[in-house]
Amino acid sequence: MASDPSPLQDFCVVDKNSPVFVNGFVCKNPMDVKAADFFKAAELDKPRMSNKVGSNVTLINVMQIAGLNTLGISLARIDYAPLGQNPPHTHPRATKILTVLEGTLYVGFVTSNPDNKFLSKVLNKGDVFVFPMGLIHFQFNPNPHKPAVAIAALNSQNPGAITIANAVFGSKPPISDDVLAKAFQVKKNTIDWLQL
Amino acid sequence: MASDPSPLQDFCVVDKNSPVFVNGFVCKNPMDVKAADFFKAAELDKPRMSNKVGSNVTLINVMQIAGLNTLGISLARIDYAPLGQNPPHTHPRATKILTVLEGTLYVGFVTSNPDNKFLSKVLNKGDVFVFPMGLIHFQFNPNPHKPAVAIAALNSQNPGAITIANAVFGSKPPISDDVLAKAFQVKKNTIDWLQL
Amino acid sequence: MASDPSPLQDFCVVDKNSPVFVNGFVCKNPMDVKAADFFKAAELDKPRMSNKVGSNVTLINVMQIAGLNTLGISLARIDYAPLGQNPPHTHPRATKILTVLEGTLYVGFVTSNPDNKFLSKVLNKGDVFVFPMGLIHFQFNPNPHKPAVAIAALNSQNPGAITIANAVFGSKPPISDDVLAKAFQVKKNTIDWLQL
Amino acid sequence: MASDPSPLQDFCVVDKNSPVFVNGFVCKNPMDVKAADFFKAAELDKPRMSNKVGSNVTLINVMQIAGLNTLGISLARIDYAPLGQNPPHTHPRATKILTVLEGTLYVGFVTSNPDNKFLSKVLNKGDVFVFPMGLIHFQFNPNPHKPAVAIAALNSQNPGAITIANAVFGSKPPISDDVLAKAFQVKKNTIDWLQL
Amino acid sequence: MASDPSPLQDFCVVDKNSPVFVNGFVCKNPMDVKAADFFKAAELDKPRMSNKVGSNVTLINVMQIAGLNTLGISLARIDYAPLGQNPPHTHPRATKILTVLEGTLYVGFVTSNPDNKFLSKVLNKGDVFVFPMGLIHFQFNPNPHKPAVAIAALNSQNPGAITIANAVFGSKPPISDDVLAKAFQVKKNTIDWLQL
Amino acid sequence: MASDPSPLQDFCVVDKNSPVFVNGFVCKNPMDVKAADFFKAAELDKPRMSNKVGSNVTLINVMQIAGLNTLGISLARIDYAPLGQNPPHTHPRATKILTVLEGTLYVGFVTSNPDNKFLSKVLNKGDVFVFPMGLIHFQFNPNPHKPAVAIAALNSQNPGAITIANAVFGSKPPISDDVLAKAFQVKKNTIDWLQL
Repeated sequence: MASDPSPLQDFCVVDKNSPVFVNGFVCKNPMDVKAADFFKAAELDKPRMSNKVGSNVTLINVMQIAGLNTLGISLARIDYAPLGQNPPHTHPRATKILTVLEGTLYVGFVTSNPDNKFLSKVLNKGDVFVFPMGLIHFQFNPNPHKPAVAIAALNSQNPGAITIANAVFGSKPPISDDVLAKAFQVKKNTIDWLQL
Repeated sequence: MASDPSPLQDFCVVDKNSPVFVNGFVCKNPMDVKAADFFKAAELDKPRMSNKVGSNVTLINVMQIAGLNTLGISLARIDYAPLGQNPPHTHPRATKILTVLEGTLYVGFVTSNPDNKFLSKVLNKGDVFVFPMGLIHFQFNPNPHKPAVAIAALNSQNPGAITIANAVFGSKPPISDDVLAKAFQVKKNTIDWLQL
Repeated sequence: MASDPSPLQDFCVVDKNSPVFVNGFVCKNPMDVKAADFFKAAELDKPRMSNKVGSNVTLINVMQIAGLNTLGISLARIDYAPLGQNPPHTHPRATKILTVLEGTLYVGFVTSNPDNKFLSKVLNKGDVFVFPMGLIHFQFNPNPHKPAVAIAALNSQNPGAITIANAVFGSKPPISDDVLAKAFQVKKNTIDWLQL
Repeated sequence: MASDPSPLQDFCVVDKNSPVFVNGFVCKNPMDVKAADFFKAAELDKPRMSNKVGSNVTLINVMQIAGLNTLGISLARIDYAPLGQNPPHTHPRATKILTVLEGTLYVGFVTSNPDNKFLSKVLNKGDVFVFPMGLIHFQFNPNPHKPAVAIAALNSQNPGAITIANAVFGSKPPISDDVLAKAFQVKKNTIDWLQL
Repeated sequence: MASDPSPLQDFCVVDKNSPVFVNGFVCKNPMDVKAADFFKAAELDKPRMSNKVGSNVTLINVMQIAGLNTLGISLARIDYAPLGQNPPHTHPRATKILTVLEGTLYVGFVTSNPDNKFLSKVLNKGDVFVFPMGLIHFQFNPNPHKPAVAIAALNSQNPGAITIANAVFGSKPPISDDVLAKAFQVKKNTIDWLQL
Repeated sequence: MASDPSPLQDFCVVDKNSPVFVNGFVCKNPMDVKAADFFKAAELDKPRMSNKVGSNVTLINVMQIAGLNTLGISLARIDYAPLGQNPPHTHPRATKILTVLEGTLYVGFVTSNPDNKFLSKVLNKGDVFVFPMGLIHFQFNPNPHKPAVAIAALNSQNPGAITIANAVFGSKPPISDDVLAKAFQVKKNTIDWLQL
């Protein structure tokens, strides 16, 4: 989201020992803050293993860097196997900006109702693309032989991600197939298939 | 979204004749503002026809009431046919609060990754439920004989809606079935089926 | 107000047992969150008893639904006795949008200094009206025989309400009648009358 | 209000010749901006004539200093005649902080419903007091012989002011005395008196 | 900054005994709030001693008035010795508006890269000037014989201040003179001079 | 800054032909929006020439990608020559998060008054560091032989940058050396040296 609440002091580094939950996180005593609180030896330069759809997101948000609390930004490295993808998803609280470090990506997003326009683009090394706040988007590596790598930034300390396939067809417990069959205008056994 | 930008004057009523586009809308001269600018003879008391999934949303946002510009709220009546549903969707810029006027609704939302917990509830007349900002949610009328009616409010002048089935499987142009088949881990012909 | 601070996670459900006070509320462990936290068996379908000015507001805000914390919205049912009113008041932190469920309402708001224009409208069943953030407004049921009912939404988890008559003439302790007599340009005994 | 929308550039100085209205103001070309755009020869050091309740507010907001647009603050000098007052009012979009330059002030504010607690204090030269956003407040000069002077700041480029007496009993057109008589629980002729 | 997060209740007075740190401050029980929480016997009418550059800032922010928490504003008196200055500094979280109570001030600010335009003005008693959020600015008393006094307001409960000379050349520990020599394009011994 | 105003529609792509200036930018007709509006063939994969302090910032903000308007984020590639630096500067409207793509960086920031603590860290390839909103910070390549490269993201569509050396000693017109000599507690000829 384009507007995490503004900071009211230089920083408010997460106190990982606090039992108190608030919007964002409780902070530790500013007297105890160190440079390490703003740092992560993230190895964002290293390729990562892919999941079943052929991608891996290494997200550096407020869970990884305690100093990000109240500061409204996070960063990620995304690895794509050949023909891998970061499948259709939304960020409920952020816009994403992405640049390609290696390889080629076919990317796109879909506008909201009623138009549902699909805007897409092929990105090469060094190109930049923006995915507006809350819209469904994806990245796909069309190359059958080479991996791709991107760096993405999001304007929230905790942007959240909702992978459509998982949230709709893989929630715990599952959404009733009665509901989903009508929503997607297919038979229940198709839904059951999708829910596997 | 919980934070449309704040108003900088009492009101900023949409100037429907302006050719200038801004974040939200350009306003008309405040000297020309009338009570009618804050009003809509909306007939929110009348049942409405249903779409193919058995629901109809009559949304009163800034497009219907010009005076809503900069004021961060909108209101809707939702009609549900017997066994009808307001199918899984997100609002990229709003939380929704809903109360049932007639009938019964089975409602739920799914939390973001990695948990994708599905929280659901049956609502009767007079009950209230909240769908947090940006999460996938739906309402379903489980009664095979009676319609249901709800009033919902959203905290944006233009909350937006993204119906998952339409945006993923019905975008214009369509998203490649290569991408969707892998994303949903099914065969391309299942995707083609969903895209019909 | 059009901008409760934005949420930094899917939800932040009020921890009713916490002794810690913050802007809004401390939240409970997200692992313990249940669908019931977003629900209220509010009986918003039932008529309510009226106060001395002939109205009753049943407000569903963050005090009634713990899940509303950080989400920036609330909902109310308002009942009006014949000739009853929701008397002149402001919401210091919200715009209100209202629809009439039953009966007729004469509604209006007054713009800020120096114009103090009074904009008013008669609303029938199904009509919608907006009361901009922070302005003095009221609803009055002009029908001497029939009650009226409205649903209203406000874009804050805790919009607050300041009933002018009560805050000015009924505060605890009372504001000095010297101050009020001059402010309202009347004699002190008129103020004493109003303060009864 | 504690949150005028944030600036998106160093400044956005009001273009006084633009016919276009937006939330806040359209700005002039940044190439044409001069130091004078951030300046007002305001003579805030000079006593001002009082109105009928014995006060005068010289407000320096975005109307007086074009450079204040998007910057979220304004400043005022308030003069109080002996026994004069800045009568009960609210700022729909700002908190006020005030310091006394000359004389003595009796000040207070009333909390929102249902408590309507009246918190008050006598301020002497050099003292500072805060009036929270949207609450009804006033300042009164209790000295029958000497004037008082204060400087106040508000956190909006256009905080707005609603003087209760004027807005409720002096709006144009007037609010029906039927409505006001019941709201204030007095006879209509008392309302007519107040409306003079 | 023009947007401290908005308040979610009438006030949230700092609980000075709480060991819990949050964005801003934890508040005390609203039942325990008193008028004194919004008050400071600040003696803003009294001249103050000057520091080595000939100025003194008496800032009334949330540390001095606990009631300012969540309310987004603070106030300061600034004293300038003859030829004294409030040296070049930024406020990372606020715009400043200033009026001259006594004497004359030469004031200015510098716009951001790449232009770095310096806009300046001479202010006399009663004049008002605005320093936009985050820009480097200063005030200088050009009179070799008379002091000057100003009142300034900032739109954050804790605007912060970064005095350039101190932060760049006087940090603890010092920034390496290798870095600073190249940054300022001078020899290291000039930097060592500045760091004394 | 952690809170660019929130978007009120899916996107608001800059209309580069509009003569109207607003907070941010006027947008073009959403019907005319294309995927290219969210794209920049930025060649962020290519090394860039360095300036006189041995660095080059290639910033992709709303000026480069029109679709970034209202979306609150920007991205940059920074090249550092051997012993080059991105000299001490602030971003008046953003926090920065940075990862090292090639080489080594010595980075740090200084907290606000009165502590002016200098927190620093050596970053290697793949490491991530955060520079909080509005604080003075720098990056320095300590390697005398090899260049370094970083990707940085900032949470504003137009974060702004203020290079301290340029803004203080190189403004147009220059700040008086009387003012700067006293501010930095050195002789005027040292200031004259710095202003060259």
